Amino acid sequence: MTAPTLVVEPGDFTAVREQTNLILEEYLDRKATAAAAHRMPAEVVETLRGFLLAGGKRLRPLLCMTGWHVADGQKGIRRVLRVAAALEMFHAFALIHDDIMDHSHTRRGRATVHRIIATRHAHGRSPTAADQLGAGAAILIGDLALAWSDELLHTAGLTHRQLTGILPLIDAMRTEVMYGQYLDLTATGQPTDDVQLALAVIRYKTAKYTVERLLHIGAALAGANRELRTALSAFALPIGEAFQLRDDLLGIYGTPTATGKPNLDDLRDGKHTTLIALALQRASRAQAAQLRQFLGCPQLTDDQADIARNIITATGAPDMVEQMIQDRCRQAEQALTRSPIPTATAPALRELARSATRRST
Amino acid sequence: MTAPTLVVEPGDFTAVREQTNLILEEYLDRKATAAAAHRMPAEVVETLRGFLLAGGKRLRPLLCMTGWHVADGQKGIRRVLRVAAALEMFHAFALIHDDIMDHSHTRRGRATVHRIIATRHAHGRSPTAADQLGAGAAILIGDLALAWSDELLHTAGLTHRQLTGILPLIDAMRTEVMYGQYLDLTATGQPTDDVQLALAVIRYKTAKYTVERLLHIGAALAGANRELRTALSAFALPIGEAFQLRDDLLGIYGTPTATGKPNLDDLRDGKHTTLIALALQRASRAQAAQLRQFLGCPQLTDDQADIARNIITATGAPDMVEQMIQDRCRQAEQALTRSPIPTATAPALRELARSATRRST
Repeated sequence: MTAPTLVVEPGDFTAVREQTNLILEEYLDRKATAAAAHRMPAEVVETLRGFLLAGGKRLRPLLCMTGWHVADGQKGIRRVLRVAAALEMFHAFALIHDDIMDHSHTRRGRATVHRIIATRHAHGRSPTAADQLGAGAAILIGDLALAWSDELLHTAGLTHRQLTGILPLIDAMRTEVMYGQYLDLTATGQPTDDVQLALAVIRYKTAKYTVERLLHIGAALAGANRELRTALSAFALPIGEAFQLRDDLLGIYGTPTATGKPNLDDLRDGKHTTLIALALQRASRAQAAQLRQFLGCPQLTDDQADIARNIITATGAPDMVEQMIQDRCRQAEQALTRSPIPTATAPALRELARSATRRST
Repeated sequence: MTAPTLVVEPGDFTAVREQTNLILEEYLDRKATAAAAHRMPAEVVETLRGFLLAGGKRLRPLLCMTGWHVADGQKGIRRVLRVAAALEMFHAFALIHDDIMDHSHTRRGRATVHRIIATRHAHGRSPTAADQLGAGAAILIGDLALAWSDELLHTAGLTHRQLTGILPLIDAMRTEVMYGQYLDLTATGQPTDDVQLALAVIRYKTAKYTVERLLHIGAALAGANRELRTALSAFALPIGEAFQLRDDLLGIYGTPTATGKPNLDDLRDGKHTTLIALALQRASRAQAAQLRQFLGCPQLTDDQADIARNIITATGAPDMVEQMIQDRCRQAEQALTRSPIPTATAPALRELARSATRRST
């Protein structure tokens, strides 16, 4: 019996989300069965499943799928969806490791992976030992998510041309996002007024990884040429930057119940974002001195955070960042109208751009 | 101009080590150039290079190459060597993450990656902040080593048959070693007399990963059949177990200057090894009580470690482990003589077995 033909129209995001979730669930079910058969601890798959299925916009699968549609992909949609699911699994890896490095306690409104494991193994351990076990286990669960992302890809049934077409893109994407994270990590705790550094982090950590490479991967699966790939970059890079600039604003001014993450962490960690770099650049000497006292202070109180927010607002930095977002959205829109991207798929790209960059308190 | 033909005879370990190092150095040179061109921090490649080229027996490349020889590999030795180098890069990933989880300060007689980065970024940071940065950066350097191990493999110029032959083996290897590490990590700090658990850790973390899968990968590159693969397993699994049992003995009784790693860490961490499980099983009630006091005690002194060692010795556990090593070496030897493995390649396997399991104080 052959599986029924699956049709996913460009822009049918609900279908892509459903199909991606189905593939991930089915894959994790098989991993759970294999773990049980080899007497391996069930908590690895359980925790990863909880993380993956707790939420997330599935932005990466949507972009991969849209890239495929843009390049006029026709046959073999199930293979493309499996690659899309692999990319979501890769993102789970990146977030799990990111949360360890940032010492985040919550993500998507739930405890982070390292916190879940630390709590589960608290019995008979000191709090420090439980925390260390949580971090170590989360490193491994992240490593497994990365390895399993590859396995999803390797078992997608890709043709030799498809496989050798996307492997270099995936290799490049990984190097870029990891370097971006590295820059971010080493700059955190010692924010300066260096806007260029903040923009470099954005470019590697987000713009290339989160948008450009995913569109390229989807397009490569449909055999896209270089011209189309360049056109996709012209759209993707500004959108990716706008996405991260929005995230930086939400990291300071967002409402935790709406964003699913705390709005104190960026201040407490002393994140070196474009918003902060601009604020430090434009602050008076007195404002800058007070801001520096608060940034990277792990015990920052809610009241102190309010003072810090008021200073940042007073410098005009949030308005500038908002303007940068608008500029980038306009650039992306221009890239779209002037490009060889088929008009039928432009609405899907526009919708993705809106969903990635819209205000959300 | 074509590159001169490269010939590596079975058992010519010096040539394999040299060629692997050349490939790794050349690859890292290119990564360093790329990082400089994109203004990415140079310390990532530098630290990884220092780690990779500081030492290591290159056991994994040797096994991969030997697997290829066993399966009568003839053409395309440069591709096989590149896969061998990729496997060494994967091992660097595993060790870098392992050292973070174990809080090890030294490896191969040098500071571990997380310690190197923590020291380098100590300026202007509290010791805790520097430690956390070191751990986070080492997570990322490990992640990059894993991604780059894939890139080495993807750019080896393998045929479709070779690539699709080894990808499932590599996927299986990763899942096994990561699960093995997970079992090891969650059992550490609370060692018991459960010998079966200790043996399960050995099987997944070491025997399959360090020996069996590597021989399989090399053999698969030469198109080995299932019969040969089974024969290799019958040799590899006991050797891998013997290798880890030897490592467990050295972890307690080794001389740090000879082994390149401290002999207090396994006791201080409370590692759940076969040696410790057997000692707890055979100890008198008084001995067991005293031993439990010391195992997993982070402040264990040299004198207390000596007392712990004396108790372990008195239980007879080290002799039993020594016996287990001998039994496994004999099993492996029997597997070799009864198998379809060509006699010309048996000496290379014997030499690998000896080098992996010999006593070294």
